[in-house]
Amino acid sequence: MAPNMNQDISTSLNTAMTDVADKIEAEINKHLQIEQPEDSVISEPKLIQAMRHGSLNGGKRLRPFLLMQAANLFCVSEASALRAATALEMIHCYSLIHDDLPAMDDDDLRRGQPTVHKAYDEATAILAGDALLTMAFELSSHEETHANPAIRCEWVAALAKAAGPHGMVGGQMIDLEAEETTLDLSGITRLQRLKTGCLIEVACQGGAILGQASKAQRDALRGYAHDLGLAFQIADDLLDVESTEEETGKKVGKDADRGKETFVSLLGVDRAKAQAALLAEQAVDHLSDFDHKADLLREVAQFIVNRRS
Amino acid sequence: MAPNMNQDISTSLNTAMTDVADKIEAEINKHLQIEQPEDSVISEPKLIQAMRHGSLNGGKRLRPFLLMQAANLFCVSEASALRAATALEMIHCYSLIHDDLPAMDDDDLRRGQPTVHKAYDEATAILAGDALLTMAFELSSHEETHANPAIRCEWVAALAKAAGPHGMVGGQMIDLEAEETTLDLSGITRLQRLKTGCLIEVACQGGAILGQASKAQRDALRGYAHDLGLAFQIADDLLDVESTEEETGKKVGKDADRGKETFVSLLGVDRAKAQAALLAEQAVDHLSDFDHKADLLREVAQFIVNRRS
Repeated sequence: MAPNMNQDISTSLNTAMTDVADKIEAEINKHLQIEQPEDSVISEPKLIQAMRHGSLNGGKRLRPFLLMQAANLFCVSEASALRAATALEMIHCYSLIHDDLPAMDDDDLRRGQPTVHKAYDEATAILAGDALLTMAFELSSHEETHANPAIRCEWVAALAKAAGPHGMVGGQMIDLEAEETTLDLSGITRLQRLKTGCLIEVACQGGAILGQASKAQRDALRGYAHDLGLAFQIADDLLDVESTEEETGKKVGKDADRGKETFVSLLGVDRAKAQAALLAEQAVDHLSDFDHKADLLREVAQFIVNRRS
Repeated sequence: MAPNMNQDISTSLNTAMTDVADKIEAEINKHLQIEQPEDSVISEPKLIQAMRHGSLNGGKRLRPFLLMQAANLFCVSEASALRAATALEMIHCYSLIHDDLPAMDDDDLRRGQPTVHKAYDEATAILAGDALLTMAFELSSHEETHANPAIRCEWVAALAKAAGPHGMVGGQMIDLEAEETTLDLSGITRLQRLKTGCLIEVACQGGAILGQASKAQRDALRGYAHDLGLAFQIADDLLDVESTEEETGKKVGKDADRGKETFVSLLGVDRAKAQAALLAEQAVDHLSDFDHKADLLREVAQFIVNRRS
């Protein structure tokens, strides 16, 4: 299934994003085949089905797109970038499955479909998330991801760090605690940098790792990803206020319902929009030393702040 | 805190197991330090505290012990084996935290202490498990685990496979489904081989990977671990029937309460005991090509079937 793309993005970006999304869908599908073992009446099919439900759902695959575009700057083979991107997307999908659980955000809908614990049950959703997270590292460490094991190790370490307690999971924890605290702008920025930003940063970093980029190139991509991640989150907060459930495929107005501070509640709609636009520009500025190969990374920064879902 | 050891095991095994348990406790502690970041009023301390609660609790550290003993056969440095063993134990601890959740086994006690969701809350327990699992791969991929990145990658891949949907998590899924199905002996064996056996096998395999053991040596250790894992599980089922909550530090009689089949319900107590003893002997037989360096691995097979907790 093709992702929902914006009408107003360029054909080349639309084509490239659809292409990556299709390839990620196919690659996840390849790794989540259901095999009925011969020696038992019951087995893992339900687990694999739940993993498929939570990962084969037509997402935009933004993180894989960023990884593959960053990798393309350094002429990394597509097969190599695709495997790392698939592992990264599995981690993103696991985080959504666990985030949607009743004990966490308690969401019934995700991309217009029942969340995994709604389609199956809570225990299955917990295990499906655990399994996707684990599988991401199996994929990453395999020689098909890169011929050089030192590079694979560097990627595994970066991915684990970005997803772990001082990265994404740490951000989710702060997000939970934020329901009982009032965060100021620096608190929200820190929360989002961990919760959303770390995976966006490691996407760009992944391309640089696979491509053995120079320190200057890595710093440029880190700066780009940092600003892009914040712009993405501000745009997300704006969508939560301004869009409909039909457009986003998930419940909207959640943050206000829970009394949670967001970039929009702290800055107001107009300043939030201006800030997102500024960050997108800043993100692009970091790419000045790259040639036309970085054009889609430049364009996606605009897409991120203008998207409707 | 020293683990509860049996009175009737040899001094050398007792000393060696206590030594490993102490070192694992110290190593986990080292990786789970609480740092209060300067730039926020709230942060990850609660998450790290919950990770500590679920992992620094005086367990026997059987899997780390097996890994370090197997590594010792091939003269692997202790620092290297200890890091891999710590990663493995983090995965074991995460699996217990998630297993204890209300949506899963719904247990209030673990090693005499409140389970993580009881001491904190469900959301925190889910995230603490996720974080321990993720951190295990960060540790494993780091150069301190082994100087050779090809060996680190092999270890990451083996660990992820053992813990993933075709290993431990797959076993947990079957275990959940088993509450609504009647398993026969081969069904129970498959369930336990995945749920418990895979991590025990990867413990022994970890020593062989770090030590670049020959295929014959790896096969011998795989045979040992396979029989040991089943013996361990049968002994566990016997403990659930025969011991008290004071001895085990967790609820007993659970399986019978839920009408779940176990080795004991299918074989009866006497045949289950005989089978566990036979498997322990078989396990030891696999080690015949190793010299006295394998003596503690031989002894631990007896310890496993005779333990009281």
